[in-house]
Amino acid sequence: MTKLTKKDILGMADLTVDEIHLILETAESFLEISTRDIKKVPTLRGKSIINLFYEASTRTRTSFEIAGKRLSADTINISASTSSVVKGETLIDTARNLEAMNPDIIVLRHSAAGAPHLLAGLVRQSIINAGDGAHEHPSQALLDMMTIREKKGRIAGLKIALVGDIQHSRVARSNIYGLNKMGARVVVAGPATMMPRDIEKMGVEAFTRIEDAIVDADVVMMLRIQLERQKQNLFPSLREYAQRYCLNRTNFKLAKSDAIVMHPGPINRGVEISPDIADDSGFSVILDQVANGVAVRMALLYLLSGGNE
Amino acid sequence: MTKLTKKDILGMADLTVDEIHLILETAESFLEISTRDIKKVPTLRGKSIINLFYEASTRTRTSFEIAGKRLSADTINISASTSSVVKGETLIDTARNLEAMNPDIIVLRHSAAGAPHLLAGLVRQSIINAGDGAHEHPSQALLDMMTIREKKGRIAGLKIALVGDIQHSRVARSNIYGLNKMGARVVVAGPATMMPRDIEKMGVEAFTRIEDAIVDADVVMMLRIQLERQKQNLFPSLREYAQRYCLNRTNFKLAKSDAIVMHPGPINRGVEISPDIADDSGFSVILDQVANGVAVRMALLYLLSGGNE
Amino acid sequence: MTKLTKKDILGMADLTVDEIHLILETAESFLEISTRDIKKVPTLRGKSIINLFYEASTRTRTSFEIAGKRLSADTINISASTSSVVKGETLIDTARNLEAMNPDIIVLRHSAAGAPHLLAGLVRQSIINAGDGAHEHPSQALLDMMTIREKKGRIAGLKIALVGDIQHSRVARSNIYGLNKMGARVVVAGPATMMPRDIEKMGVEAFTRIEDAIVDADVVMMLRIQLERQKQNLFPSLREYAQRYCLNRTNFKLAKSDAIVMHPGPINRGVEISPDIADDSGFSVILDQVANGVAVRMALLYLLSGGNE
Repeated sequence: MTKLTKKDILGMADLTVDEIHLILETAESFLEISTRDIKKVPTLRGKSIINLFYEASTRTRTSFEIAGKRLSADTINISASTSSVVKGETLIDTARNLEAMNPDIIVLRHSAAGAPHLLAGLVRQSIINAGDGAHEHPSQALLDMMTIREKKGRIAGLKIALVGDIQHSRVARSNIYGLNKMGARVVVAGPATMMPRDIEKMGVEAFTRIEDAIVDADVVMMLRIQLERQKQNLFPSLREYAQRYCLNRTNFKLAKSDAIVMHPGPINRGVEISPDIADDSGFSVILDQVANGVAVRMALLYLLSGGNE
Repeated sequence: MTKLTKKDILGMADLTVDEIHLILETAESFLEISTRDIKKVPTLRGKSIINLFYEASTRTRTSFEIAGKRLSADTINISASTSSVVKGETLIDTARNLEAMNPDIIVLRHSAAGAPHLLAGLVRQSIINAGDGAHEHPSQALLDMMTIREKKGRIAGLKIALVGDIQHSRVARSNIYGLNKMGARVVVAGPATMMPRDIEKMGVEAFTRIEDAIVDADVVMMLRIQLERQKQNLFPSLREYAQRYCLNRTNFKLAKSDAIVMHPGPINRGVEISPDIADDSGFSVILDQVANGVAVRMALLYLLSGGNE
Repeated sequence: MTKLTKKDILGMADLTVDEIHLILETAESFLEISTRDIKKVPTLRGKSIINLFYEASTRTRTSFEIAGKRLSADTINISASTSSVVKGETLIDTARNLEAMNPDIIVLRHSAAGAPHLLAGLVRQSIINAGDGAHEHPSQALLDMMTIREKKGRIAGLKIALVGDIQHSRVARSNIYGLNKMGARVVVAGPATMMPRDIEKMGVEAFTRIEDAIVDADVVMMLRIQLERQKQNLFPSLREYAQRYCLNRTNFKLAKSDAIVMHPGPINRGVEISPDIADDSGFSVILDQVANGVAVRMALLYLLSGGNE
């Protein structure tokens, strides 16, 4: 496979193994551009990319914007709080209006699961899902897989533990889809109140104790507690959550001796992960994830624009 | 006429017929750029355009930003909510400061009627009025006229009906000025509480029933109910407004059989216009308006920068 | 000295006289670019500059953005209010994440004194302090010095009066450091409640009457009353402040006959400075300061990127 035939990147559920390979290999080839003195190639000159963000985000929006600019595309940011969204326009009308301005790609973050899928069927532009509610966040899963491959040389056969709020995490969902397809053994752990009822049907083993998931893991991926998204009290207090689910020196010893630690960020230090674990470059690859994120997004923008046509 | 001698674009009241023709013809020639694979020409390279928006806007700001970028200008966005406007600086001082940074064009949206005219007399840069209170919105009227010309081949002699909140609509005001100059017959309809007292002096016929305005119209232009701008209750409820003024299959039959439907957006679906009318590409040209908007704004930026000098 | 060996621009306290000279001379050579028809040179093509603003700002952010764009750098704006700062991420984690995306320079404005210094020690990118609490604002002091040199031909030996809220002003602090190094005689005046206790240790003469500072001054620099930053009541009312500290025709007569008037903006008209003084181009150089600001920021971005390497 040398080019992507999909119009949109909506989720890991939709991507084939070949497509994932193509994206990761393209991203790997782009990684070097960001380390050059002149970090810019003319590949997407004259393309218009709209970042349409209905939820606040620093890293994802900045990552897509930098990715676009390093490929010489024009990037236009629209954030819900400063837009005519206050005027009550529907998402569909907003998208149709943007479509009429002839951008090439719309990168959408929205609090509603399925919002990007809805738009993908309505507008002729490519849609990239930059996070839709608690549903999917494919560019995050792709950068996670790129990082695992970079550090471990492969994904197939690895034991990968995801720990935290599985139910509300689009990062977890996208990684479960993607890692399963790539042949990893995925185990999850989290409070029962944060565990989807039918989680085993997604092809993972589920535990309520972090230790049961971490044991012998090659990769430990800690999930963010979405403090700002939870209306209900799913656990008594942050302190109690941290006591049971925080990755620390003690429980991390259960993982393989060469295990790596991942987190999608932003980190709640001392809640999901103890600071000494997060900052230990011996096994924490959290910042490699961020660097790979720019490369993955460059790859997505490039491939959706026609790639090497 | 082959170049614009005006420094600013403040309103349709100020533009001559020749100037309107020049702008529309220039916009028509730019329309094709946005359909290219590489949507960018070097025309305004090294020009700085500031979008100074004191009111929230998706489509107008995005349209100007895309227009600038496709001409290779540098675009800088300033929105009131995230700026030193919170520090209480006057508009004049803000403008003089921006002037000192040597931009080429300042695109201003402001809630106060006359704000762009005030700045135009104070700073040496070109000012484009992107909407000033309930006063004027010339780039909207120009894109409306471009769309009418595209669909009808001419403006002169057409019957054009504007329906809704005539009093608070800068879109209505700019279109009345512009369409009258171009020889159209403009009729308006709306609740008596939303009709300017001396509306006939603007050279239009005014009605309170939508049907009286629509009958035999070539163009039906529905106006947005500015829910967010009305402090007073100018009609009992949205529902009653919709019952009397919503464009639907029944009253639209009164228009000419080849009539087109326009709306400046964002649409309040089911209030100003029924969804099936808005979305029927047989006669709804709402999205053509948006596409033409980018071309009109490219033309304005180009002509104010000296055109083909 | 022909190139800057510093990684960061954190404050005037850190800059040597040679470094200040280099920056001012570089800025003077860049001033002309902003007056060209094509205001753009390819110097920083392929460089990524992040404007990370935790406090609202029009002029400083716009000035840095325009400076970057005129040097052909890619500029990315992040403002705290629309970013994942709402998710409670620490400044350090935000900076480390941005670092991983490989920008070249991070321009930081933050309400906490010392924030840029903290980041400078943690990330490999160059940090420019665009204002840290009541601490320093070096690019402002540099543009002030550039303006004084432009108008007076020199800085050494001039009597320069700073009037207003000395205690809370990062502009005052940076100017005191810088002007002292350059051999000026700096005098300050302000209410006793706004005067640092040990102000004389900074090498300035301090007065509580504006007249005592202004007399025979070559330069009168009025400071902004930071209405939005003061929690306490440091003076009875704005009116009483203005009665005692507003620069007006009467007290300005005490200065040298060829004295110039400066203000970092935004101006509270009639509070710090009477409108007729602020707007008199015979001696007010407030807008020259703004124009020079773009040139100074171009110089900083250029020199931190390696200059003429």
